[in-house]
Amino acid sequence: MKVDLNSDMGEGFGPYRLCDDEAMMDLVSSTNIACGFHAGDPTIMTNMVRLAKARGVDVGAHPGLPDREGFGRRELPFTDAELRQQFLYQLGALIAIAKAEGVRVSHVSFHAAMGNMVNRSEALATAMMEAIHTIDPSLIVFCTDGSIIEQTAKVVGLRTLSLFLADRAYQATGALVPRGQAGDLVKDEAAVRQRVRQFLTEGTVTAICGKVIPMAARSILIHSDTPGSLELAKRVRAEITAAGGEVVPVSQLLG
Amino acid sequence: MKVDLNSDMGEGFGPYRLCDDEAMMDLVSSTNIACGFHAGDPTIMTNMVRLAKARGVDVGAHPGLPDREGFGRRELPFTDAELRQQFLYQLGALIAIAKAEGVRVSHVSFHAAMGNMVNRSEALATAMMEAIHTIDPSLIVFCTDGSIIEQTAKVVGLRTLSLFLADRAYQATGALVPRGQAGDLVKDEAAVRQRVRQFLTEGTVTAICGKVIPMAARSILIHSDTPGSLELAKRVRAEITAAGGEVVPVSQLLG
Amino acid sequence: MKVDLNSDMGEGFGPYRLCDDEAMMDLVSSTNIACGFHAGDPTIMTNMVRLAKARGVDVGAHPGLPDREGFGRRELPFTDAELRQQFLYQLGALIAIAKAEGVRVSHVSFHAAMGNMVNRSEALATAMMEAIHTIDPSLIVFCTDGSIIEQTAKVVGLRTLSLFLADRAYQATGALVPRGQAGDLVKDEAAVRQRVRQFLTEGTVTAICGKVIPMAARSILIHSDTPGSLELAKRVRAEITAAGGEVVPVSQLLG
Amino acid sequence: MKVDLNSDMGEGFGPYRLCDDEAMMDLVSSTNIACGFHAGDPTIMTNMVRLAKARGVDVGAHPGLPDREGFGRRELPFTDAELRQQFLYQLGALIAIAKAEGVRVSHVSFHAAMGNMVNRSEALATAMMEAIHTIDPSLIVFCTDGSIIEQTAKVVGLRTLSLFLADRAYQATGALVPRGQAGDLVKDEAAVRQRVRQFLTEGTVTAICGKVIPMAARSILIHSDTPGSLELAKRVRAEITAAGGEVVPVSQLLG
Repeated sequence: MKVDLNSDMGEGFGPYRLCDDEAMMDLVSSTNIACGFHAGDPTIMTNMVRLAKARGVDVGAHPGLPDREGFGRRELPFTDAELRQQFLYQLGALIAIAKAEGVRVSHVSFHAAMGNMVNRSEALATAMMEAIHTIDPSLIVFCTDGSIIEQTAKVVGLRTLSLFLADRAYQATGALVPRGQAGDLVKDEAAVRQRVRQFLTEGTVTAICGKVIPMAARSILIHSDTPGSLELAKRVRAEITAAGGEVVPVSQLLG
Repeated sequence: MKVDLNSDMGEGFGPYRLCDDEAMMDLVSSTNIACGFHAGDPTIMTNMVRLAKARGVDVGAHPGLPDREGFGRRELPFTDAELRQQFLYQLGALIAIAKAEGVRVSHVSFHAAMGNMVNRSEALATAMMEAIHTIDPSLIVFCTDGSIIEQTAKVVGLRTLSLFLADRAYQATGALVPRGQAGDLVKDEAAVRQRVRQFLTEGTVTAICGKVIPMAARSILIHSDTPGSLELAKRVRAEITAAGGEVVPVSQLLG
Repeated sequence: MKVDLNSDMGEGFGPYRLCDDEAMMDLVSSTNIACGFHAGDPTIMTNMVRLAKARGVDVGAHPGLPDREGFGRRELPFTDAELRQQFLYQLGALIAIAKAEGVRVSHVSFHAAMGNMVNRSEALATAMMEAIHTIDPSLIVFCTDGSIIEQTAKVVGLRTLSLFLADRAYQATGALVPRGQAGDLVKDEAAVRQRVRQFLTEGTVTAICGKVIPMAARSILIHSDTPGSLELAKRVRAEITAAGGEVVPVSQLLG
Repeated sequence: MKVDLNSDMGEGFGPYRLCDDEAMMDLVSSTNIACGFHAGDPTIMTNMVRLAKARGVDVGAHPGLPDREGFGRRELPFTDAELRQQFLYQLGALIAIAKAEGVRVSHVSFHAAMGNMVNRSEALATAMMEAIHTIDPSLIVFCTDGSIIEQTAKVVGLRTLSLFLADRAYQATGALVPRGQAGDLVKDEAAVRQRVRQFLTEGTVTAICGKVIPMAARSILIHSDTPGSLELAKRVRAEITAAGGEVVPVSQLLG
């Protein structure tokens, strides 16, 4: 019943912040740090690495499209080669910043549109996973269960870790109810806690249609850029403990 | 009489190019690749690495200030900590892009204002050199003879290589005649060739005042962003051969 | 006892916001809209103009340096000519966006470092004021009392309006106590209300040393990017009404 | 037999230039100035306006998508509202810069992807044309013959001017042979001159299939960002004179 608690962080820029990253860092066991393309900058990245190091939180790369204005959420017409090179650029940047702080980057978690684009093309996903493997074969790839990213990562020889979103509704297929559709968000606190408990103790989630489906995840993702994210993280953490579980960084989880 | 022939390259952006990088790559033995802040982007960086690899040219990082509009030539009010993190970000980005192509980055050569700022502060230079050492202690630091960069690099335990500029006039102190001052540029072809010959055979340069001073450089730098740079590179290369010298990449030079 | 209530607004970017601009727009009588260089973008600018129009709030330009990362607060080494052209670019952009919404831009209020640089050079300030006059001689220039901006604007034939900062301490000279110095901010609510009352009824402010000095301002500035800005605006507005004053847009004030 | 000679110009950025704009300005009668989104910046825009003014060349806006890296050639997923606001922002910026130099902007010519997107949607084109009309109803809209831009401009009450491309092959429909297809470019000098003569004297062009079709254009467009653009401009200008024609700025042409 060990589980990782994960969040995308450092997604500010210049004077802007989306989250109280310092408070959130006290709650998670692994963090995905924005790498300066959709958000973040070298100073914020360094601060995130330091905060994580001080708390024993695992540091991961959270690369996105070069689109600050659209926060990396818009799919843009880049070629596969361009996407691969944008990704490598960001991954390398974080690795160097972390290394200078004495920290090893443990994982990669793609942001928004970059993740969606990678997850739609086996060729692109394979190129990405091979690039990760070349840079550091011990890097763990975060994914959703059954995705192209997960499949291609395994083919290439990378370890993967799939994510459970406690506050998002699932379809019977295991896919998320898309944002904006009715019932997409689980807002009730008791419901969120119940879902965490069920996930931890039974390894399942109840889909929006009522069907109970397996949830093979080993990490719970908290979106830091939504209102109430800190409270959600506290609630999830409390429920993990209450259920007899333990919050453990991804590197120890996959050991 | 082995010498490295070096140039800053990949300094384009989007539709823009400052130099015929492909032709220049046929002439140099080491290249400093712009890392996306003052110029360059992940696609150009990848292309540069591939061109260099195909020709056995050493790949170096050419980090600059985040200032495309000013081409990294304007000193901007960044703190030492910001400069260090901007530098690490760029260095890591190139290392990852090169590694994915099977290429090791061999050296670092600072661009314009970033170099000037580092060269004015022992504290900043030390922080930069320590960062380089942490990332990869085998990285060679390009510098001018007697500079703060050279001194701090040696203290930290990094190897250095100093540069000779064949088409720029020197002062008796060994410093360059500043751009814009009378006689700053040596434009006459015969004079440039004579200077290369003297540098190679006697290890000296004749300063603008007529005094012959030692020139301890082991690499000749060609600015790729000036008109006629390809012709200058050809001329220098021909003169090296004519003088019985050999053009050798920096990694073999320092062995 | 008519007074304008003014705030810098629309200083977000992409996913980021510094202030609840919609709520703030209910409280002010004039707004200075960021013009896309230090903050803001065409969509945010348009939204600001629409919010202002719906409430009868005067629309002004709030141009800054092209420095999103530094939020326009860092003085950068631009020439006077570059600053003038950057300013004209932003002013024209807002005028067109406003015009398409049927709104006339009524005033100009410089942001941070751009304002500081203009206020330090009579030559630059004169060039800026002449540019404003050429674009639209009816534009009102916001300034601090006795500043170079005020003086040069008057020489050129532009109307000016000086600002009072209710929550910032003043020196006996009339200058603000610089940010970061002891006592720079007036945080006590009763004290802020007292200052607004004194300003409105007596046209004075008590400097940090205790000396009562004249305050010739006709507009009270609320910084929207500080915590509690909405509460401060409400408090100031309430005090104006309590003191028998009236909040009136700048265009009616100078009418 | 009066005709306008037109070119997109000022498409540099920072240290980069795509064309010898000063030499080109001696050859054209109207110029479309990049407005800082796909290329150009406030300083370049100002220089272009000054060069044009000194030569009696008409100044037009050449707005594009905010995409320097892609040079405004990639269609990006902006909403119609975003495109309209991006356009207004750029148009206003140039109007102010020109006005400060005592120059009136006479026309608008959309760049690349922005033009393509406008030309595919009657709703978007109408919104754009209405925006232009609100800003200045005397603005002339450059277009290709029969395009949506031309139609919606006329409905809104704007004057239009259609363009002939002397070095590009046409299809029998009047559309250009797309770039990259066989025969897209007319490279032979004699052929280009013959086409200019035929266009001027007969108002027709011979399509790639051999069919002679009407060419209702009143302006000849020279792409400044292609190699040999200056020579092409000189050749076209010479041929106009040889055919007894006269090169006249668009504002005089439409009177």
